[in-house]
Amino acid sequence: MNNLKFNQEKPIDLIAIGRLAIDLNANEINRPMEETITFTKYVGGSPANIAIGTAVLGHKAGFIGRVADDQFGRFIVSYLEEKDIDTSSIVIDQSGAKTGLAFTEIKSPTDCSILMYRENAVDLKLEPKDIKEEYIKQAKAILISGTALAQSPSREAVFLALDFARKHDVVVFFDIDYRPYTWKSTDETSVYYNLAAEKCDVIIGTREEFDMMESLTNPGNDNDFVTAKKWFDYNAKIVVIKHGKEGSISYTKEGESFKGRSFPAKVVKTFGAGDSYASAFIYGLMEGWNVDQSMEFGGASASIVISRHSCSDAMPTAEEVKTYIEKCKKEEGQSV
Amino acid sequence: MNNLKFNQEKPIDLIAIGRLAIDLNANEINRPMEETITFTKYVGGSPANIAIGTAVLGHKAGFIGRVADDQFGRFIVSYLEEKDIDTSSIVIDQSGAKTGLAFTEIKSPTDCSILMYRENAVDLKLEPKDIKEEYIKQAKAILISGTALAQSPSREAVFLALDFARKHDVVVFFDIDYRPYTWKSTDETSVYYNLAAEKCDVIIGTREEFDMMESLTNPGNDNDFVTAKKWFDYNAKIVVIKHGKEGSISYTKEGESFKGRSFPAKVVKTFGAGDSYASAFIYGLMEGWNVDQSMEFGGASASIVISRHSCSDAMPTAEEVKTYIEKCKKEEGQSV
Amino acid sequence: MNNLKFNQEKPIDLIAIGRLAIDLNANEINRPMEETITFTKYVGGSPANIAIGTAVLGHKAGFIGRVADDQFGRFIVSYLEEKDIDTSSIVIDQSGAKTGLAFTEIKSPTDCSILMYRENAVDLKLEPKDIKEEYIKQAKAILISGTALAQSPSREAVFLALDFARKHDVVVFFDIDYRPYTWKSTDETSVYYNLAAEKCDVIIGTREEFDMMESLTNPGNDNDFVTAKKWFDYNAKIVVIKHGKEGSISYTKEGESFKGRSFPAKVVKTFGAGDSYASAFIYGLMEGWNVDQSMEFGGASASIVISRHSCSDAMPTAEEVKTYIEKCKKEEGQSV
Amino acid sequence: MNNLKFNQEKPIDLIAIGRLAIDLNANEINRPMEETITFTKYVGGSPANIAIGTAVLGHKAGFIGRVADDQFGRFIVSYLEEKDIDTSSIVIDQSGAKTGLAFTEIKSPTDCSILMYRENAVDLKLEPKDIKEEYIKQAKAILISGTALAQSPSREAVFLALDFARKHDVVVFFDIDYRPYTWKSTDETSVYYNLAAEKCDVIIGTREEFDMMESLTNPGNDNDFVTAKKWFDYNAKIVVIKHGKEGSISYTKEGESFKGRSFPAKVVKTFGAGDSYASAFIYGLMEGWNVDQSMEFGGASASIVISRHSCSDAMPTAEEVKTYIEKCKKEEGQSV
Repeated sequence: MNNLKFNQEKPIDLIAIGRLAIDLNANEINRPMEETITFTKYVGGSPANIAIGTAVLGHKAGFIGRVADDQFGRFIVSYLEEKDIDTSSIVIDQSGAKTGLAFTEIKSPTDCSILMYRENAVDLKLEPKDIKEEYIKQAKAILISGTALAQSPSREAVFLALDFARKHDVVVFFDIDYRPYTWKSTDETSVYYNLAAEKCDVIIGTREEFDMMESLTNPGNDNDFVTAKKWFDYNAKIVVIKHGKEGSISYTKEGESFKGRSFPAKVVKTFGAGDSYASAFIYGLMEGWNVDQSMEFGGASASIVISRHSCSDAMPTAEEVKTYIEKCKKEEGQSV
Repeated sequence: MNNLKFNQEKPIDLIAIGRLAIDLNANEINRPMEETITFTKYVGGSPANIAIGTAVLGHKAGFIGRVADDQFGRFIVSYLEEKDIDTSSIVIDQSGAKTGLAFTEIKSPTDCSILMYRENAVDLKLEPKDIKEEYIKQAKAILISGTALAQSPSREAVFLALDFARKHDVVVFFDIDYRPYTWKSTDETSVYYNLAAEKCDVIIGTREEFDMMESLTNPGNDNDFVTAKKWFDYNAKIVVIKHGKEGSISYTKEGESFKGRSFPAKVVKTFGAGDSYASAFIYGLMEGWNVDQSMEFGGASASIVISRHSCSDAMPTAEEVKTYIEKCKKEEGQSV
Repeated sequence: MNNLKFNQEKPIDLIAIGRLAIDLNANEINRPMEETITFTKYVGGSPANIAIGTAVLGHKAGFIGRVADDQFGRFIVSYLEEKDIDTSSIVIDQSGAKTGLAFTEIKSPTDCSILMYRENAVDLKLEPKDIKEEYIKQAKAILISGTALAQSPSREAVFLALDFARKHDVVVFFDIDYRPYTWKSTDETSVYYNLAAEKCDVIIGTREEFDMMESLTNPGNDNDFVTAKKWFDYNAKIVVIKHGKEGSISYTKEGESFKGRSFPAKVVKTFGAGDSYASAFIYGLMEGWNVDQSMEFGGASASIVISRHSCSDAMPTAEEVKTYIEKCKKEEGQSV
Repeated sequence: MNNLKFNQEKPIDLIAIGRLAIDLNANEINRPMEETITFTKYVGGSPANIAIGTAVLGHKAGFIGRVADDQFGRFIVSYLEEKDIDTSSIVIDQSGAKTGLAFTEIKSPTDCSILMYRENAVDLKLEPKDIKEEYIKQAKAILISGTALAQSPSREAVFLALDFARKHDVVVFFDIDYRPYTWKSTDETSVYYNLAAEKCDVIIGTREEFDMMESLTNPGNDNDFVTAKKWFDYNAKIVVIKHGKEGSISYTKEGESFKGRSFPAKVVKTFGAGDSYASAFIYGLMEGWNVDQSMEFGGASASIVISRHSCSDAMPTAEEVKTYIEKCKKEEGQSV
């Protein structure tokens, strides 16, 4: 059990809002991308990955976003439909904006980078008029990805979605997902992340992301508890602060805190860890599990995804995650 | 007495934030501007006028804003200093942005218009770093003008100022001051006005301005009480809705409502009515007067200003306003 | 007599192309503009002044340009019509662009400056479709002002006008009129000025302006003859290089050179000297006078204009210029 | 023999100027791109292909252009170096601009399309300062690709290169290469293409491209001879107008005209036909061959390239082209 209340009468579990993009993953890996000859195409983008992860785990997901009126846009929509995600609120953009691209370079399992194409990115063309009150009303929860705040009109669309969510008792998950290259300045970023975070129930980010959020109002703070506490004065119930390899810590409005654990993995690349974590953690919370149990589920899902080549395509089923946790625990037991 | 609490230990009464501009008023009036030969230069801009009005009434005012590094910028700062307004937080902008200009055309007392020069306007270059927590802390109240929300980075600067104000128990007055030509779309406008209004204590606007704010979330509403009530769920204590000639109505969080009255005037032009109203109304509230008494003071000040040629230069002293009210009441009594 | 051939059958003498603007001249002069209280409105802009100068001297002028759909735009058109300038090719722009403004500051007769408003300037919205081959065909000569090359689409419109002029044996006068604030970089400026100059018959500029033109292809050159000679390999017949107080020098394709003289003046301000010079010099050449006689006429006109308060409104008649020259010569003779 | 004179003392045969880009060719072909799973990476961009084609045929090529400071930029430079192209004048751009991408879709051999990524394209960041007079001076010829005229500062860089080329007797080939998506308007396009074409020795384009160039000055003309003749009044010696399947026609300043022929091909896709044609045609002219012989060589090279999967990587050697021509002629002879 946890401190979130989901209205079980609503037909959609989670609506993700924001970025739908394309990953082009190097096929010839463990080398610089200059020497990569071929790339494989996948659906990408943090909220897309989370929606897919959620759907594969067994929840009913929907998406609000914009795709380009081209081959990449059509591929994205048809892939989501294959995963049984509701695409009725995905708008085909006619402005000539482009699907964001992420060319992934895997020099070694721990030396990965991304060559981004985000100029005139179609996902940031989302408009307030694309946000339907009736649609959001039908969801138990929505997921906001911070990148959608980076530019107008997408930013305004997100704030409108937050307004509708609060009005209709829809739980709001906020994945900070801070990507500096889409923003004009840290000051701007900080202001809008704060305005959004005030209206969210669950906030998930890295320590560095929370530092950025505090850069204007509490610079230099590195106390996780202080960071988390601020948001409980607004609408937050749970705040998760991730510390990379040192693991995560979560705080609840009621004053509890939980340390996350990590699982062993045969790492192929580091991409996708955050998205798979978020989708499995949210899944757990929406199943009514305890916060620590949900964190464990998130951690295991992340370990599975970083052992595979893609992100979206690698999202595990609930069965797979459970089996993985059991296996790891068993091995640990043996190694003790 | 009213429902606002001002910390009397703070040295500055009111800090206005936002637009400092130049009015160029036609000297040859009652004709189209094509036939105007000469113009007289005044300090202008809604928050500038309100700060000046406040200072002339006898309160200590300060200003946070940006001026151009040119003759107009220097004129503005020196004029404010003459009025004993604290200009220590006015930043000389170095980006080459321009002082906003308003050429006023007075075809007849009731047919007035403005030819605006707001391209690359310097007031919208205000940055978060221009907002000093220490400075805002020293004020009993701040005044936010909605136009400052129109563009980045001024918009972010305003949100940061709101944050500091809430943190330090500074009362926030919000003058909606909606000027469509500075905005990209009604949707965008509506979203940011709402985000700002959530954080304000007193909200002052016309019915049309509140319609714009409700265009996404409550379109078609024309019930003033419904409009006002929404903000009492956030931080508002008083909401004033202006209906032009039909007068104003104000609501308090405690459930009262008050109708404003208007005063007779020998109208020269309509410019400046709103700013003089706001400065005198705020003055009254900060003196601890009742809401209706403050509204009366505002109405009388407006009548005085529209009988004169300029806005900023025409702001009356408290003595003048009081005398005017008495005179009007006496005349009314006689005419009964 | 000179080396230019004007087709006398064409009904219009000179069509000027480019900037129509407003000058706002300080009425209280010999002080910084901060202390100026009122401004007087005049038509301004270099090609506007030249067209007006030409018309006042007695030639038939026309204009190709864009004005704003507002009071300033209407004032400009009606002023030109008063001066009997053909305005049939002036387009009323609907894009919301603004009339350029020049606030003049006269600290002393020799310390003058201009506060420019050129953001989103309407004159630079001139489009190729505004250039009518039939209209240009009717002119003996056109005048190109370099500022019109500063931005697209005005730049393209000018190149199209040059094409039509060459096709129909219309003489092209090129007034370099370089204003750095309208340009992105010296490199860009230099490239387009050179492309335009290749197609012109008479090129008029200051030494500094020619330096800018040579900055990429012949940097460091300060030899006027070398500068002028380059253009005779293209289409130029006369090149005038102005050296401020040291006077001007002109070169012809045939190898002659002429030194200009300056006339005494009771200087009020320095604005307008170049435009009055150009209009009277062009007038002389179009009357078929010798180059040196035309230069003298230009110099005298300039001396008259700098003794007066405005530019456009101060342009002298041919009679005035002649009388002035005679008077000056007489005084010189007497003083000998 | 032909009418072009190449200074044989110059060490570089051809310097191409402009676009260096990446092609991502669908590996699973004969289907919509939505169903393509993997893409293969090649160097692309019309002038890049022509330089590569020239180098493979056996001439010494160089390149002036900008590449991104990333994996794609480094790949491009190293590929050109492999082909023995001089890359000393390729500038590593630091502005964050992106390598242009072309995702090719091959639905069928005759139904091909390209999904372009050209937002903030790095090739258009070429600046006048990147153009070294000393470098251009060393070339027998330069090749200008029209796309480099699409935006500032690349446009100005090209005009400067044209200036240096004319000054140092460097022959200029102009490949019109008109791509509407990089341009703001047809009017703008037309103006700059004309200004550039005036300064070129050989102009190569399709009938549709010449129509665009004539849209402002000779709209509706479809007479190839009229089209070509205009440029002989400037600097052109040879004009080639391509009519797709109907073949090409070339005109010389001396009044000759030649019809090109096409060769049979097992078409895989249509991409690359123009670039391979241009490189082989230019090769022929620079070898001193007759115009018609050079056209034949171009046509044969095009037929070879469209039978292969890539463009740049598919460029044939001179030996391959010659063998192909002989084979085709023999087969034709047999079929007679």
